[in-house]
Amino acid sequence: MNLTDHTSAQIDATVAAAAAAADTWAASSAATRAALLRGLAEALEAARDTLVPLADRESHLGPARLNGELDRTAFQLRGFATRVEAGDPFAHTDDPAVAGAPPAGHPALLRVRQPLGPVAMFSASNFPFAFSVLGGDTASALAAGCPVIVKGHPAHPALTRATAALAAGVVQAQGLPAGVFGLVEGAAVAVGVHLVQHPAIAAVAFTGSFRGGAALQAVANARPRPIPFFGELGSINPVVARPAVLAAQGPALATTLAGSITLSCGQFCTSPGVIVLLDDPASDRFVDALAAALGDARPHAMLTPGMRANFDAGVARWAATPGVQWRVAPGAPGTGGDAPTPALAVTTAATFIATPALHDEVFGPAALVVRAASTDEAAAVLQAIGGSLTVTLWGADTDDADSRALVRAAMQTAGRVLFSGVPTGVAVTAGQQHGGPWPSSTRAETTSVGWAAMDRFLRPVALQDAPAWLQGLGGQPC
Amino acid sequence: MNLTDHTSAQIDATVAAAAAAADTWAASSAATRAALLRGLAEALEAARDTLVPLADRESHLGPARLNGELDRTAFQLRGFATRVEAGDPFAHTDDPAVAGAPPAGHPALLRVRQPLGPVAMFSASNFPFAFSVLGGDTASALAAGCPVIVKGHPAHPALTRATAALAAGVVQAQGLPAGVFGLVEGAAVAVGVHLVQHPAIAAVAFTGSFRGGAALQAVANARPRPIPFFGELGSINPVVARPAVLAAQGPALATTLAGSITLSCGQFCTSPGVIVLLDDPASDRFVDALAAALGDARPHAMLTPGMRANFDAGVARWAATPGVQWRVAPGAPGTGGDAPTPALAVTTAATFIATPALHDEVFGPAALVVRAASTDEAAAVLQAIGGSLTVTLWGADTDDADSRALVRAAMQTAGRVLFSGVPTGVAVTAGQQHGGPWPSSTRAETTSVGWAAMDRFLRPVALQDAPAWLQGLGGQPC
Repeated sequence: MNLTDHTSAQIDATVAAAAAAADTWAASSAATRAALLRGLAEALEAARDTLVPLADRESHLGPARLNGELDRTAFQLRGFATRVEAGDPFAHTDDPAVAGAPPAGHPALLRVRQPLGPVAMFSASNFPFAFSVLGGDTASALAAGCPVIVKGHPAHPALTRATAALAAGVVQAQGLPAGVFGLVEGAAVAVGVHLVQHPAIAAVAFTGSFRGGAALQAVANARPRPIPFFGELGSINPVVARPAVLAAQGPALATTLAGSITLSCGQFCTSPGVIVLLDDPASDRFVDALAAALGDARPHAMLTPGMRANFDAGVARWAATPGVQWRVAPGAPGTGGDAPTPALAVTTAATFIATPALHDEVFGPAALVVRAASTDEAAAVLQAIGGSLTVTLWGADTDDADSRALVRAAMQTAGRVLFSGVPTGVAVTAGQQHGGPWPSSTRAETTSVGWAAMDRFLRPVALQDAPAWLQGLGGQPC
Repeated sequence: MNLTDHTSAQIDATVAAAAAAADTWAASSAATRAALLRGLAEALEAARDTLVPLADRESHLGPARLNGELDRTAFQLRGFATRVEAGDPFAHTDDPAVAGAPPAGHPALLRVRQPLGPVAMFSASNFPFAFSVLGGDTASALAAGCPVIVKGHPAHPALTRATAALAAGVVQAQGLPAGVFGLVEGAAVAVGVHLVQHPAIAAVAFTGSFRGGAALQAVANARPRPIPFFGELGSINPVVARPAVLAAQGPALATTLAGSITLSCGQFCTSPGVIVLLDDPASDRFVDALAAALGDARPHAMLTPGMRANFDAGVARWAATPGVQWRVAPGAPGTGGDAPTPALAVTTAATFIATPALHDEVFGPAALVVRAASTDEAAAVLQAIGGSLTVTLWGADTDDADSRALVRAAMQTAGRVLFSGVPTGVAVTAGQQHGGPWPSSTRAETTSVGWAAMDRFLRPVALQDAPAWLQGLGGQPC
């Protein structure tokens, strides 16, 4: 199935329907929103036997991974339904009047939250369920009371259409305005730009490449009325491993890490791309074990031929950098069709810090070992990276000055800091933070995964001396 | 006293000191932060007899207003101290591990908040205490754990220096790194641009004109690493008054509203600039009473000659718009020196909606009455404005369809909706929201007044499987 670019007129009609539905959806009850979210989860599960093979054909990710991803997507929809029922989007601060002169005295203020309005949601290629049509951005925006217009990803057009048709059916069956959910299709950049520029679009959620995200953010910023752009742009996810933990558990950790680097052919925004090791024999042995494990791995095909070409270009950039050596050399460009072999390179902290091109993500099954002479130098590597969705610290279990220095540097660099395990796999839960400093995301104060993702689509309004009838409605004039 | 522009080298040195202090201040305890905030409040009060006359000389705002503003500023500093002691910046979500396979099973996550780093704070001219050197932006950023570099406003350089010297003295007396508080001075645009572009600046807080704020936001967005720009850019603060309330209380409301329009010579970001009235004899009588009250008012001089010139240009823009008539004509440009006479104009909803130039703020003692034929048309006026710090609705006390429609439109337009009183006067409290949709502010999801202002300078970090020692520190490796 080929994707047909929607015309400007088609996009305008889709946005107009969303704008027409916005007041109704903003005023919808918790029960109405939860019913839609649960209905979408059920419909997704009911269509599993159709959708998973479709997704596999278009993505090569395999039925095991795709079934798990569909489960996660349904779990996420139901999770947001539960949060809506618990009252999250309707939470308010009741600040009663205080008698007396200002500054201590003040009128009654009821601080509530207002849905932003229609949200443009740009699907990712690498999660055809969980970060696509009915993924976390869609679920959280709907939960917040915002209509959603999905910009489908051209890497999986048939799955996109099938999922969108299913969603539209649930919206209709529940008697909701059709504009609560819309779909825009197009491979051309102009399609996304037209959508972001539409005056009725109130916010953008985006998961994808740095280049695409930064360009669309510039469009959002340049509108006559700029709108928030929640971009999750990927990252290089450094793993810092201290010698003691490598001495104790090196072989097992090497196997685990190789699995994380090659999982889904390295096509995760949380795929570990930089391994920071301190000079020590245990680190040398760990690199040997990691190289062996990667050398044995045979990842499946990448999502698209374009991604394979980008991967080849990325490892070529490493090869062209003085001071970077291969431990596991990549195959020649294009070898293996869309399925590359993994690559592992080694460099020094000084070279890494001095070479900004090495801070860019290489999307695919490749990692760069960075050797540091001291904890300070390891921390400096994190500071040079500046922004990442995750930092993993192995061996910070004891409270010492080096642990504290590394934790501080990691917290300054990342949205999530792991003290065991690997960064691939992002739990959908209350404590999650999937969003770190630039360039890993455009709004590090927000998360695109977990229940707090809903907060992106609500802004506070203070009601001063609200009349009794409005207080009785919790400040929501439905 | 004249203001001397700081050189790039001076600015770099000030930012470097802030960057050097950032880790220490981020790791400071609640007691340390609260002591600084309380110490600043005490120092401010102790220097009242010096600072208030200095402020009056530079601003013309008068001792009564300036003493009240100093009280408010000290109250604000102490209020943030109390919030820090209550643990606000150290609040965390503890999300224990759930056994089992994903998506339901997940590792332990401790979601904490991380100070952003050095904040550049641009003072406003119209609040020489409360939105200047030790105002709400400074207090909330310090409370969050961020060093602050104040960009002083050139309209009150002597007060700026005196207040900054006092702050530096408190920082030194408490044994804190000098870089916790810094000052940059300069009237040239290049000074502010250099500050915002400095790589070590992590966020910008700005209160001022739309033009200046939008320009600096573009600079923040264009950095190699963009940073959040929290701009409070002023607004036109529509007041919608329904006929029944005007029939009952018209004369008193006219006096109150005239007082709000002319308070501090109209130099408030919450000064009411548009009065939306429905066609009705009670509205006609209200306009008569408002015109009479404004005609009698004699505001004091504006803050600067440039502001007087801008006011003259703003009312000239109204005069040049077909369909706008004077009810109280302004004085000729420059009449009265820096002290203008108030102005009141009248137009129709259709003219207002069709004329974007009328949606721009006229900073000073002027208001534009907009006549609407219906509630729908009044709501359309609010929609045309699009973004305002406040909307005031008089007469929405009963629950009817018109009240609901107006409340909905007001909540979509404003950060604060008032149901009685006037928008000037912004309580510093938990329920406050001072920040509305563009163009009134650049981040409508944040507030620059009230305790929630601290949230701007913190971002979440999820600690996955945090070791016991770090959990024991509440996820803050001090």
